[in-house]
Amino acid sequence: MSSRKYVAEFLGTFLLVFLAVGAAVMGLKSAGILAVATAFGFVLVFVAYAFGPVSGAHVNPAVTIAMVVARKMPIAEAAGYWGAQIAGAIVGAGVLKLLVSSFGVVDETGGLGTNGWADPLTMGGAFILEMLLTFAFVLVILMVTDRAANGTTAGLAIGVALTVVHLVGIPNTGTSVNPARSIGPALFEGGTALSQLWLFILAPLLGGVIAAVVYPLTRAHVVEAVGQADAA
Amino acid sequence: MSSRKYVAEFLGTFLLVFLAVGAAVMGLKSAGILAVATAFGFVLVFVAYAFGPVSGAHVNPAVTIAMVVARKMPIAEAAGYWGAQIAGAIVGAGVLKLLVSSFGVVDETGGLGTNGWADPLTMGGAFILEMLLTFAFVLVILMVTDRAANGTTAGLAIGVALTVVHLVGIPNTGTSVNPARSIGPALFEGGTALSQLWLFILAPLLGGVIAAVVYPLTRAHVVEAVGQADAA
Amino acid sequence: MSSRKYVAEFLGTFLLVFLAVGAAVMGLKSAGILAVATAFGFVLVFVAYAFGPVSGAHVNPAVTIAMVVARKMPIAEAAGYWGAQIAGAIVGAGVLKLLVSSFGVVDETGGLGTNGWADPLTMGGAFILEMLLTFAFVLVILMVTDRAANGTTAGLAIGVALTVVHLVGIPNTGTSVNPARSIGPALFEGGTALSQLWLFILAPLLGGVIAAVVYPLTRAHVVEAVGQADAA
Amino acid sequence: MSSRKYVAEFLGTFLLVFLAVGAAVMGLKSAGILAVATAFGFVLVFVAYAFGPVSGAHVNPAVTIAMVVARKMPIAEAAGYWGAQIAGAIVGAGVLKLLVSSFGVVDETGGLGTNGWADPLTMGGAFILEMLLTFAFVLVILMVTDRAANGTTAGLAIGVALTVVHLVGIPNTGTSVNPARSIGPALFEGGTALSQLWLFILAPLLGGVIAAVVYPLTRAHVVEAVGQADAA
Repeated sequence: MSSRKYVAEFLGTFLLVFLAVGAAVMGLKSAGILAVATAFGFVLVFVAYAFGPVSGAHVNPAVTIAMVVARKMPIAEAAGYWGAQIAGAIVGAGVLKLLVSSFGVVDETGGLGTNGWADPLTMGGAFILEMLLTFAFVLVILMVTDRAANGTTAGLAIGVALTVVHLVGIPNTGTSVNPARSIGPALFEGGTALSQLWLFILAPLLGGVIAAVVYPLTRAHVVEAVGQADAA
Repeated sequence: MSSRKYVAEFLGTFLLVFLAVGAAVMGLKSAGILAVATAFGFVLVFVAYAFGPVSGAHVNPAVTIAMVVARKMPIAEAAGYWGAQIAGAIVGAGVLKLLVSSFGVVDETGGLGTNGWADPLTMGGAFILEMLLTFAFVLVILMVTDRAANGTTAGLAIGVALTVVHLVGIPNTGTSVNPARSIGPALFEGGTALSQLWLFILAPLLGGVIAAVVYPLTRAHVVEAVGQADAA
Repeated sequence: MSSRKYVAEFLGTFLLVFLAVGAAVMGLKSAGILAVATAFGFVLVFVAYAFGPVSGAHVNPAVTIAMVVARKMPIAEAAGYWGAQIAGAIVGAGVLKLLVSSFGVVDETGGLGTNGWADPLTMGGAFILEMLLTFAFVLVILMVTDRAANGTTAGLAIGVALTVVHLVGIPNTGTSVNPARSIGPALFEGGTALSQLWLFILAPLLGGVIAAVVYPLTRAHVVEAVGQADAA
Repeated sequence: MSSRKYVAEFLGTFLLVFLAVGAAVMGLKSAGILAVATAFGFVLVFVAYAFGPVSGAHVNPAVTIAMVVARKMPIAEAAGYWGAQIAGAIVGAGVLKLLVSSFGVVDETGGLGTNGWADPLTMGGAFILEMLLTFAFVLVILMVTDRAANGTTAGLAIGVALTVVHLVGIPNTGTSVNPARSIGPALFEGGTALSQLWLFILAPLLGGVIAAVVYPLTRAHVVEAVGQADAA
């Protein structure tokens, strides 16, 4: 069953980019910011409930790095997740590129839904925002998926968290909080999107690591329980 | 109890067309794209929780064909589902037509919420989009309703998935992903809607079949479990 | 505990009118139709989960009449529910009237959120719409609250159903589907709202009765189970 | 584990202010009122599911005072909650201030998302609104978190309730219903926001107290059950 995990991460990230970045490409102007933020959150809701039982439904390298730092996943498995996530995002962005360039779909973002920053927002502002938004998003994931929380509602909580961070970030960077989601469109768009891509890899990964470090402060009993299990 | 299934599929598809296509007819301009996408998703949420225990709440021939291909339903029963779904959609569209033509309801879509494509979107673009959106939507349904998933949240996951595919598709084809939903309004509207109807039957059915083929790749243990049950 | 039921129906209907009609009064233009439809649905979600365990959280005479017709409630108790619902709606509308007339709150509906119809919509169109929307809404309530359905998600399903019927109805009648919700504001607004009030009492009640009649067609096993219980 | 509660209240309130007041600061004009109301509600959904098992996820002094009045929390513990909540709100607002003043983030509220009132809304109108909205919000929290309610859906019900009170309040006061949420931004903004701050502390606290007083009227069996537990 092991390889199914990577299929799940590939398909889940493909769906995130094709459908949620797709909702931005096709409707950022006509449907609005709330519609795009809703698309990202709702995709994650159904990806969590569909792929969660297979791979945990990370579909985001920043989530996977947090799981490694929180000692919930070995680094070797994480590398496989990262590869699958990035591959899925590239295929998703490729389909969007094809639809826009050859089939008459109108790109309302003017840049295949890539992330970036521009005046008046500074590079530092973009970095802090992406790092903090990812920190918040990944902390929520760590908390609602552990044993102290209600498993039934975890997918819902994670999805609405992604909607919220998009409401904050879209007017600024377009919101990444997910290196794979940024890599896919940037590879096809090139130019500024590609030259600014490093920030949307680094800042989310750093945010994820911080979340994994802060997480145990809120969950004494979980840490203790794990300790007991180790001792047993 | 068998005939209740067809009543459920008829009523559920009637509600989908009357209420969700109705939300497009009455509010596409004044309430906006997100409102229409919300209507489709939310109708499916309550249809899933209300009619799910009776018929599985397909209310969509593309879902039913996927269930046949995935060997979860005999073809004879599927034929009954298709008939009930199409009949429900025709009655739902008929009520909308009556309200618009004889009772002063304003049609904000200008075409009874029918699906279609027009410049710059090409026929190929419409076909690929409808096929891929239906693939994504039906794959989610197959995954969240099997034994590996949490039954309580299945209706929510399916509903938000329908909202997402509408956010992607409304600016392009109006979003079908459901042959019955397209047949109903097209019969009353005629013209281009009727001449383009074939695509909104074929592409969603093909997308549903592909979803049923891809589905087992993500669920090794389910396939194995079914095999064991067959062997027992 | 019996009198608590009436307190619950009074408070629940008060909250529906104060908050959801209030959202229309304060934000129909600035926040839009989807915002108002969301307010109605979300109020019902939390009213269902908060007051459901006490009174069933009808907060709507059309729901209560359906429960009587479906033999789930004696008529004497229903009369108490109706009184509590109408009283709650009047107090809720009174608070809104006070805020608008004496405290500088701007009424964006221009009529305290009352229901009505006007050219080009005909009286017949308003009646059919209100009857059908209430039929759909109450049918969903009957189905998701019976033993065949998942109790955990019932409040969610009912709430999103109310959002959907508002998306269809707001551009036409403002959406009643609830006589109490129409009575409250109309009493304070008078004029056309009062002279058209009869339709928003009659059509929803009729829709609720039809839902109760259609309901058993979808639930053979439930009817049988009740029959067995009666025989026991 | 006791100190974890205060960490949870600090982090939860930080996230509420940084993300939800942040959504107002960054998107009130470009994303709209419904987007901001959605941000507040959705933050509370995930904060409830993430921090609920640790501290109850009050993240609001008006909720905490209601818990004291309802005899669900000793006053000494409440004081710690209040301190943590206010500290979290100040840090959250400080981050927003920093992003706006030094990193080029555009403030679409023109006042760091502070609460306030202005013509034509009177001070009395602001007070009544904030008091009633907090009453409704806290009453819902008390009801959906007690033993008569379904714990799985409590976080959802509380979150959608916060969205609804924001839809009513945003066009008037910007909606506080939470003294900590108002204190944070007002400290950095000063001026009118600071001179009007008293109202957004007093009215929500009063609303919370009233909710705690009204609450037992709807829950006879709960009060009785507690009485029996006390007697045992």
